Amino acid sequence: MKIKEIAEFTNGKLSGAGDVEIYRVSNLESALVNEISFLEKAEFAGQAAETRASCLFVPEDFDAQLSCPFVQVKNPKLAFAKIAEILHTPKKREPEIHPTAFIAENAKIGTDVFVGAFVCVGECAEIGDGTQIRAGAKIGDAVKIGRKCVVHPNVFVEDNSQIGNSVVLHAGVIIGADGFGYVRDAERYVKFPQIGTVVIEDDVEIGANSCVDRGALGETRIGAGTKIDNLVQIAHNVQIGKRVVIAAQTGISGSTIIEDDCVIGGQVGMGDHARVLSGAIIGSQAGVLPGKIVRAGVWWGTPVQPLDEYKRQNAHLKGIARLKEEVKELKKQIAESKPVKE
Amino acid sequence: MKIKEIAEFTNGKLSGAGDVEIYRVSNLESALVNEISFLEKAEFAGQAAETRASCLFVPEDFDAQLSCPFVQVKNPKLAFAKIAEILHTPKKREPEIHPTAFIAENAKIGTDVFVGAFVCVGECAEIGDGTQIRAGAKIGDAVKIGRKCVVHPNVFVEDNSQIGNSVVLHAGVIIGADGFGYVRDAERYVKFPQIGTVVIEDDVEIGANSCVDRGALGETRIGAGTKIDNLVQIAHNVQIGKRVVIAAQTGISGSTIIEDDCVIGGQVGMGDHARVLSGAIIGSQAGVLPGKIVRAGVWWGTPVQPLDEYKRQNAHLKGIARLKEEVKELKKQIAESKPVKE
Amino acid sequence: MKIKEIAEFTNGKLSGAGDVEIYRVSNLESALVNEISFLEKAEFAGQAAETRASCLFVPEDFDAQLSCPFVQVKNPKLAFAKIAEILHTPKKREPEIHPTAFIAENAKIGTDVFVGAFVCVGECAEIGDGTQIRAGAKIGDAVKIGRKCVVHPNVFVEDNSQIGNSVVLHAGVIIGADGFGYVRDAERYVKFPQIGTVVIEDDVEIGANSCVDRGALGETRIGAGTKIDNLVQIAHNVQIGKRVVIAAQTGISGSTIIEDDCVIGGQVGMGDHARVLSGAIIGSQAGVLPGKIVRAGVWWGTPVQPLDEYKRQNAHLKGIARLKEEVKELKKQIAESKPVKE
Repeated sequence: MKIKEIAEFTNGKLSGAGDVEIYRVSNLESALVNEISFLEKAEFAGQAAETRASCLFVPEDFDAQLSCPFVQVKNPKLAFAKIAEILHTPKKREPEIHPTAFIAENAKIGTDVFVGAFVCVGECAEIGDGTQIRAGAKIGDAVKIGRKCVVHPNVFVEDNSQIGNSVVLHAGVIIGADGFGYVRDAERYVKFPQIGTVVIEDDVEIGANSCVDRGALGETRIGAGTKIDNLVQIAHNVQIGKRVVIAAQTGISGSTIIEDDCVIGGQVGMGDHARVLSGAIIGSQAGVLPGKIVRAGVWWGTPVQPLDEYKRQNAHLKGIARLKEEVKELKKQIAESKPVKE
Repeated sequence: MKIKEIAEFTNGKLSGAGDVEIYRVSNLESALVNEISFLEKAEFAGQAAETRASCLFVPEDFDAQLSCPFVQVKNPKLAFAKIAEILHTPKKREPEIHPTAFIAENAKIGTDVFVGAFVCVGECAEIGDGTQIRAGAKIGDAVKIGRKCVVHPNVFVEDNSQIGNSVVLHAGVIIGADGFGYVRDAERYVKFPQIGTVVIEDDVEIGANSCVDRGALGETRIGAGTKIDNLVQIAHNVQIGKRVVIAAQTGISGSTIIEDDCVIGGQVGMGDHARVLSGAIIGSQAGVLPGKIVRAGVWWGTPVQPLDEYKRQNAHLKGIARLKEEVKELKKQIAESKPVKE
Repeated sequence: MKIKEIAEFTNGKLSGAGDVEIYRVSNLESALVNEISFLEKAEFAGQAAETRASCLFVPEDFDAQLSCPFVQVKNPKLAFAKIAEILHTPKKREPEIHPTAFIAENAKIGTDVFVGAFVCVGECAEIGDGTQIRAGAKIGDAVKIGRKCVVHPNVFVEDNSQIGNSVVLHAGVIIGADGFGYVRDAERYVKFPQIGTVVIEDDVEIGANSCVDRGALGETRIGAGTKIDNLVQIAHNVQIGKRVVIAAQTGISGSTIIEDDCVIGGQVGMGDHARVLSGAIIGSQAGVLPGKIVRAGVWWGTPVQPLDEYKRQNAHLKGIARLKEEVKELKKQIAESKPVKE
């Protein structure tokens, strides 16, 4: 892709020669010739001075000189990511059904599908066009997987789960295992029925070794465009909206609802039947109590509270030692003042 | 199963016609004809009024009218779970040794066993009658697995582990990996021997991608009827009693003991050599220090403390701001009072 | 190994007969004849009195009598671990390429390599001499794995990752999955390029179901001799030094640096771009904010603070109730004193 094409594609303003071919994206420090990088903010211009990249995305307010051509755009990181999508398309395995794969006779496999070694595809499963199922993945009975998905190695998708288009399931992901629900009887725990399903909408990405349990009676649903990091636990009947971001090792308990466009940090824990309203941002390691409603805004701590309050409380906490001293001093003053009065 | 049979099986009192056949369980909102649901508490009777279910379990103190037959029982949720066990028996795969499975010649496979695609069973391993080993599971050498177990896809059970009867290992579970123990030498960490075993007793269920490490020298043991959620970490030499419940993402460090009938929330962390006495309930995200003894009762926070104390402390914490104001006011008063005295 | 050889090997001072053969290590309580155990501290000598072991390692200041021979050494646990390394060498599977394994034609497999059932080895991958790849592991294209490694069942190593010598990857480990990075566009999250690699140096051990993401643009690196427990998350571009210990369920966010010889507890969360300086020890469940620099010493809590401060603050916290009482009392005194003044 030539620099001038890149400028055009990203609606950017090119300064410098536009005919150099760009083959790769790279970061500022290690970029080489024929590579493009980006400068996130104009005030970091110093960092860009010595780059060996052939081109940089820079912000609109960038006004320094560079030895290489540059493209001014509104959001350099975004422009960079979009060009990277083009220059570094994910590895596309050639359509193939590996001879070691085991596919049920009545499964429907679309066109241009890659099925890797030691993959199982169950009875009546459907795999959409252009989807890649990598080595060792196990696809259960009656599972539906849409078009252009990538199912990485050793993923397991339980029977009846439904996966949309352009979904990426990273290695070791487990979709549709039984939820965790029991009713205590005198001498044992009786399993509450875990007979529901999982629905994963289009453009969802789920990180390595994360788990999404099936619904107990209804469904567990992950909305379109939602991105989930590694080692995340999504319990039965959780409803996650669209464009939600969930960082690593977070756990969401049963029947909790996270509305559209929320951002959830890492190692967050949410109790069951909580509701996180659209636009909420929850900091890492926060704890949301069962049934809690979390409104839009930034939240922090356990139990979760607005960031401002959390900070104020932390400041107060730091201030206890001083408060103690003050009280001690007051006591002394009062004690001393008393004899005067008598 | 006819409604009258259901009433009889659950020792319930039937009101209404008992001849309708029930095929499925469902939740109150989405239940349809020939389905049974339940009302957990009598005060929610309003929710039941519009159900389309053919039958409901209701509590004994339920005294409203319903358009469908209902069965009064002591614990509607429990009755519902028990009927679900009958109506929705877990999918039983027909006995089969999949042609792609690889089973050591000297392994002993019981009757009515299902062994899925790409399963390995090691030397001298034993698989009990009626057990199902699903696709991609790897069973090590000399592993003993009891009767009527379900080992879900891509589980790994390390050599010499012992699994009881009616155990369920969900997908991605890892039993018997090395514990995490090292002794620091001048220039490197020397591995403390991790040569013990794992024993999992009857009726245990372990959630997806959870790990139970082998004992360092002795054994790691999970007691009968214990239920463990997804992504839980059980370290070497941990001893877990009977009917313990452990929610997702909790981690138990080496040699810690959890006695019978404890309930442990999600994302709890326990240090090594702690002891949780029978009947303790530990809230989510709590932290138990190494060596700590946790008595029966409800515990919360890090470091863990009785729930009452935790709540009181939290209230105090919220009160610091006010306390500060009060001290400020006192200082002012004292300062003002002084000139008077002089 | 005879007792006198053991004493010699560990530079210990033998008391008692040295000709008995030792076959196994064991713990003090369950050790039997021909087994060796250890006593960590001289003051626990009472525990050793009744051992049935044939030999014990004891500390240099041990001065009690024992019915069995004993070897005085500087660090009994370390000596014990070193002898265990010799007596209990990890199971060495005989060199074999299992007939069900699938190895790309242009992959280079060293000598004395074990490749288990249903293993995949990708194009141009290289497996060093003496390495064992156990059942179901998937090795991507152009992956390099050094000598004498053990890759346990169902591990996945993504394309282009580099693994040193004597590395142990426990079951379910995932090396080189995409990092978690997106740039928000108006209507969707655009994936920030995740096209870097992972480098794992010699003698690293990574616990079951842990994940090490590939670098976004550069590399993620785990330094030589570092030991990582189960279910740990290492994000893209993290740099971990040499001889670092990380306990279970800890998560390290993108681009964070952990220098040599740090010890990180379990369930710790670290924000991105933090830096943990050499020699820092971070307690379990601690939280390190993004960008934070953590110096040598012991740290605790969220946000992380020096252990002393953490303890002091906790003590203050416990003291609030009393402080409140004191303030109340002062108010009373002042109120009472006022009428006197009037």
